[in-house]
Amino acid sequence: MSDPRPSGRAADELREVRLERHFTRHAEGSVLACFGETRVLCTASVETRVPGFLRGKGEGWVTAEYGMLPRATHTRSDREAARGKQGGRTLEIQRLIGRSLRACIDRKALGERTITLDCDVLQADGGTRTAAITGAYVALVDAVNGLLKRREITRDPIHGAIAAISVGMWRGTPVLDLDYAEDVACDTDMNVVMNDGGGFIEVQGTAEGHAFRRNELDALLGLAEKGIAELVAAQRAALADA
Amino acid sequence: MSDPRPSGRAADELREVRLERHFTRHAEGSVLACFGETRVLCTASVETRVPGFLRGKGEGWVTAEYGMLPRATHTRSDREAARGKQGGRTLEIQRLIGRSLRACIDRKALGERTITLDCDVLQADGGTRTAAITGAYVALVDAVNGLLKRREITRDPIHGAIAAISVGMWRGTPVLDLDYAEDVACDTDMNVVMNDGGGFIEVQGTAEGHAFRRNELDALLGLAEKGIAELVAAQRAALADA
Amino acid sequence: MSDPRPSGRAADELREVRLERHFTRHAEGSVLACFGETRVLCTASVETRVPGFLRGKGEGWVTAEYGMLPRATHTRSDREAARGKQGGRTLEIQRLIGRSLRACIDRKALGERTITLDCDVLQADGGTRTAAITGAYVALVDAVNGLLKRREITRDPIHGAIAAISVGMWRGTPVLDLDYAEDVACDTDMNVVMNDGGGFIEVQGTAEGHAFRRNELDALLGLAEKGIAELVAAQRAALADA
Amino acid sequence: MSDPRPSGRAADELREVRLERHFTRHAEGSVLACFGETRVLCTASVETRVPGFLRGKGEGWVTAEYGMLPRATHTRSDREAARGKQGGRTLEIQRLIGRSLRACIDRKALGERTITLDCDVLQADGGTRTAAITGAYVALVDAVNGLLKRREITRDPIHGAIAAISVGMWRGTPVLDLDYAEDVACDTDMNVVMNDGGGFIEVQGTAEGHAFRRNELDALLGLAEKGIAELVAAQRAALADA
Amino acid sequence: MSDPRPSGRAADELREVRLERHFTRHAEGSVLACFGETRVLCTASVETRVPGFLRGKGEGWVTAEYGMLPRATHTRSDREAARGKQGGRTLEIQRLIGRSLRACIDRKALGERTITLDCDVLQADGGTRTAAITGAYVALVDAVNGLLKRREITRDPIHGAIAAISVGMWRGTPVLDLDYAEDVACDTDMNVVMNDGGGFIEVQGTAEGHAFRRNELDALLGLAEKGIAELVAAQRAALADA
Amino acid sequence: MSDPRPSGRAADELREVRLERHFTRHAEGSVLACFGETRVLCTASVETRVPGFLRGKGEGWVTAEYGMLPRATHTRSDREAARGKQGGRTLEIQRLIGRSLRACIDRKALGERTITLDCDVLQADGGTRTAAITGAYVALVDAVNGLLKRREITRDPIHGAIAAISVGMWRGTPVLDLDYAEDVACDTDMNVVMNDGGGFIEVQGTAEGHAFRRNELDALLGLAEKGIAELVAAQRAALADA
Repeated sequence: MSDPRPSGRAADELREVRLERHFTRHAEGSVLACFGETRVLCTASVETRVPGFLRGKGEGWVTAEYGMLPRATHTRSDREAARGKQGGRTLEIQRLIGRSLRACIDRKALGERTITLDCDVLQADGGTRTAAITGAYVALVDAVNGLLKRREITRDPIHGAIAAISVGMWRGTPVLDLDYAEDVACDTDMNVVMNDGGGFIEVQGTAEGHAFRRNELDALLGLAEKGIAELVAAQRAALADA
Repeated sequence: MSDPRPSGRAADELREVRLERHFTRHAEGSVLACFGETRVLCTASVETRVPGFLRGKGEGWVTAEYGMLPRATHTRSDREAARGKQGGRTLEIQRLIGRSLRACIDRKALGERTITLDCDVLQADGGTRTAAITGAYVALVDAVNGLLKRREITRDPIHGAIAAISVGMWRGTPVLDLDYAEDVACDTDMNVVMNDGGGFIEVQGTAEGHAFRRNELDALLGLAEKGIAELVAAQRAALADA
Repeated sequence: MSDPRPSGRAADELREVRLERHFTRHAEGSVLACFGETRVLCTASVETRVPGFLRGKGEGWVTAEYGMLPRATHTRSDREAARGKQGGRTLEIQRLIGRSLRACIDRKALGERTITLDCDVLQADGGTRTAAITGAYVALVDAVNGLLKRREITRDPIHGAIAAISVGMWRGTPVLDLDYAEDVACDTDMNVVMNDGGGFIEVQGTAEGHAFRRNELDALLGLAEKGIAELVAAQRAALADA
Repeated sequence: MSDPRPSGRAADELREVRLERHFTRHAEGSVLACFGETRVLCTASVETRVPGFLRGKGEGWVTAEYGMLPRATHTRSDREAARGKQGGRTLEIQRLIGRSLRACIDRKALGERTITLDCDVLQADGGTRTAAITGAYVALVDAVNGLLKRREITRDPIHGAIAAISVGMWRGTPVLDLDYAEDVACDTDMNVVMNDGGGFIEVQGTAEGHAFRRNELDALLGLAEKGIAELVAAQRAALADA
Repeated sequence: MSDPRPSGRAADELREVRLERHFTRHAEGSVLACFGETRVLCTASVETRVPGFLRGKGEGWVTAEYGMLPRATHTRSDREAARGKQGGRTLEIQRLIGRSLRACIDRKALGERTITLDCDVLQADGGTRTAAITGAYVALVDAVNGLLKRREITRDPIHGAIAAISVGMWRGTPVLDLDYAEDVACDTDMNVVMNDGGGFIEVQGTAEGHAFRRNELDALLGLAEKGIAELVAAQRAALADA
Repeated sequence: MSDPRPSGRAADELREVRLERHFTRHAEGSVLACFGETRVLCTASVETRVPGFLRGKGEGWVTAEYGMLPRATHTRSDREAARGKQGGRTLEIQRLIGRSLRACIDRKALGERTITLDCDVLQADGGTRTAAITGAYVALVDAVNGLLKRREITRDPIHGAIAAISVGMWRGTPVLDLDYAEDVACDTDMNVVMNDGGGFIEVQGTAEGHAFRRNELDALLGLAEKGIAELVAAQRAALADA
């Protein structure tokens, strides 16, 4: 009935998801998150210091930084380090990743530590921020499990899982997990971050072309719920490997 | 039944809204937007040039910049010009304002012109971005009407009105138009941008404390729809004055 | 005999001066200073910290920052926060404001506190730096009176009043308080800062066109003395209101 | 006789070298260069523009940028994009990579095109700059072969191969291809860039501890010549794959 | 009667003034200006381009840049290039130098050329800006004479000479040409820029301690007039050498 | 047989070397280093603080900063302070100077002090970095001798002398101490830093045109050894003056 998606996927079908742990060796957690051709390297780094506003309060912090290699994209984009500043899009995404992951952390249980989640896009094909959040969660768990194993902390500070997915209106049809071809052409683009209990952490919807109606919004949220459930399962499967 | 709001307002009650046109004299549009004690000066500046990526295409551009005077807030914050860069929050807000207002503009009809919407917060008490969007729309209309009156353009490029409001969960109750006292204490904070046809332009919801459920999200969206209708009426009334 | 001024004012006539206290609510002092169509919002913020070079000396500090909203002027100017630095003119003016106000402060009596005077131009029509100094003085007094009232300090650190005015040669005639139309066309432009005892704090004269003679300088200084006396009276009147 | 190397390698033994082509899909050339545990992603991007100083001269340009992911190293280092500038080490390395690769290019034959070699370190274990140069050469060849295949250029602008290796004095013995454990502890560290004809492009030797003697320098250069020959063979083998 | 000056000079006595032309060889004008122990290298560079706002108008431009070597002063100050920006004092001084020298230039006669006056302080002992202006004038004349000699311009664009001197109140006495020891201890500090016709170009007086009276200001201006006359004579003498 | 050098010097002939001590008066060491027409002002500044990574370790630090006056060169180059950052070449050179001079310092014997070597090029004619290193060594000795004389340290932290020279291939002939005319036209350019014991501190060779052969490299190193011996003698002679 409706136009087929460029990828041939069903409207409610995720791309192939891969969460490859231990991708690099130095970080306390290191996950290559692949949503189809999108590949984001997510590392979790533990440091025994906290930002100034938390010093001496016995609490930890989780924060994120996001970057894109210059040629992760179809045409080369400027290196932000060379331009001398991070763009608005970068800051917006890294703030989103940080807020999302803090939603599953008991900062008291973490103690005076900072965990930094570096999400660097090696290859982009749409959905880099959702792959980043979904992969960063796994890296965070690995880093925290290391702390528990080395008995640096005694209580698991992580409650629940966090995953993220995009949804959008593609030629009148609500579809799940937009790739680049869909992203540039869709009418509405929404990123949804949820926990494994079905609670919403972030909802960010933008009308790219015409405004979206309440019933479209409802349909998109339903799709997102389905996608998140599958991503949480993929996270569990990845973490189940020794 | 539920906890009263700090301001004593009903759950679905806006603060007093004032949209004072011609607040300053040089800009093509100049509106002081007041949502209660929040005051944002919104000016619209018309320039006959467009950014590089649009040059020679016969289209115009609408963009926004956002700033906060250092002592608009309870405690003084650093001046961004002195620190040498705009923070992530500022960039995020000005990107939101720009996207929102572009949603009501036919860029072909505008011709090769840029309209810059400067939204500067003189006094902050929560909801500065929603006041900014709501006021910037009125400034934009004034600027465009000037172009029409001087016959620089022949067709009105504005289709529909744009307004924005915040909603949130205050001690278990969905409430409309959060002020600062509610903003710092609420569990969920959502900014909603809509047009006067009931279409959604942006939905940005964040769980501050615990995650929010689908039914809470639905209730918040309903409140937002009510608030937006009142704001659109206030815009019309302001623009009806000679 | 001489050319009439664009505004029709007499050569030794100030524009209408208004010093509106409590213009915004969060700052310890907040004054909208209007010299005709020039409007500068001057806030005084008290903080219990001092710059590094004063730490532990039991002395306070008074400093100033100056900004201009992008569309305070006839044509929009770049936002300094977006450009990533304050221009030379801005730095020069805020250094002048800070030096001028420090001239009436006993820093020992202030204790280890910093008072920052933020002077933000909402609308410009010439003389923004003189309006800023004149208004900042009133904001400073309000902030200091608050400290005295709350008994945070016991001795008034302010000795004397500070005000500032511009003078210039307009088509061969010395005139007082240049507005924008005069400023762009005059031959000599001088800003004079004085105290209420008739002492000079700053004299900054610049030949815009041809060099000025000693007798012209003398005439300009005389005009400035007259203008300052009127401004000091306006400050007193404003501060006399409860 | 001499102290064994931490890795157990012979003094003149390279680490395992892998040059994995087509590692990412968007770039005209994309090579993951692995020298043991050091992994550098080298992409070559072709653009039909040249820097200002070459405009209109019918010549092309080859340049390089270098970056290190924050957690490529044992402890997390600051993200240069977040700090707002590239450090001296980064600039030094990317200048070296650019100069080295320009040494094998006939810029006239390239035409008015810029090829940018982005070398991003995913994992660091010593020798990132030599892996970067060695891998960037392969990416450059792939990019140029694409231009030839698409007949955008008619003559191959590449003359000869370029490779790089480090050598150093490890506890009195000259050794080839320092890994991190050797790098931090060695007395002399030298990076050598050569072409496949045995010519030297760059020699950069630094005495880390005591100064090195002429005969040590000679021994190091001999080792480098051996290592380069092996790297050039590895490049050829990698490029021989379809 | 009055306190002797630290240097033993009479109240109206300049330090030894030296204006050493051709101090460096590449610049079109190069003068080492020495006021006692203060030494400023002033170079004039001619370029056949003008800033954007003058392009195509057939007029030239004269501008200045000011710098201080890190160890020109008693204690080392930060290098502005390393800190990443020029301080407010630097910008203020270079704007003053530029304005002052433009006062003696007929920009039409200069044609579309920019002359940049670089004033770099090699050694500081008070009065660096006045030495800079006085020396830059001589460098400017040398550069312009070169243009005339090579017949690149046909009419001398320089009308009159420009020189600058500081005056101040030293323990109640007006003194000429403050050195560092006087500068840090004086009550009023005034920089005066004049032309050789006795006209004032800039007057910048600052009360360092107590405010200054009108009669003090008059006495200081009189001293400045005397000093400027001697400096103009020194400039003439320097320029008279072949 | 071979082409004469532009300067008429023999292939192994240095330019006239002058090391003028006490060139400025405030610094603890101040040397004007002249290699022919190249003039670099090298100052050594002693401060009783160390960088963060050395605090509390009882060790000192030696570091360098390099700058070039805008008109030290044939055509004016941008002022780095005005552009807002130091270029790659500047950073590379100042890192080289710092590393080179640290090679002759016993940091324990220096105690918790930083000596900063500021090398500012007043006039450039090739070889600025080698003149800087050679002159900075003399300034460093003067500064350290001051510390010894004032008994702030008891043991001389300097072991051996450090000097630097450039060598290159000029039309097929190895030549010593390239001036600007040779530098822009030579095929290979090598900077060599050595100590007075004949040990190498740094060797940095770059093929500008075609790659250089091992025997050319050997010849260049031999020339450098000869030049360094003469420079060390010049340093000794300069330091022998009272």
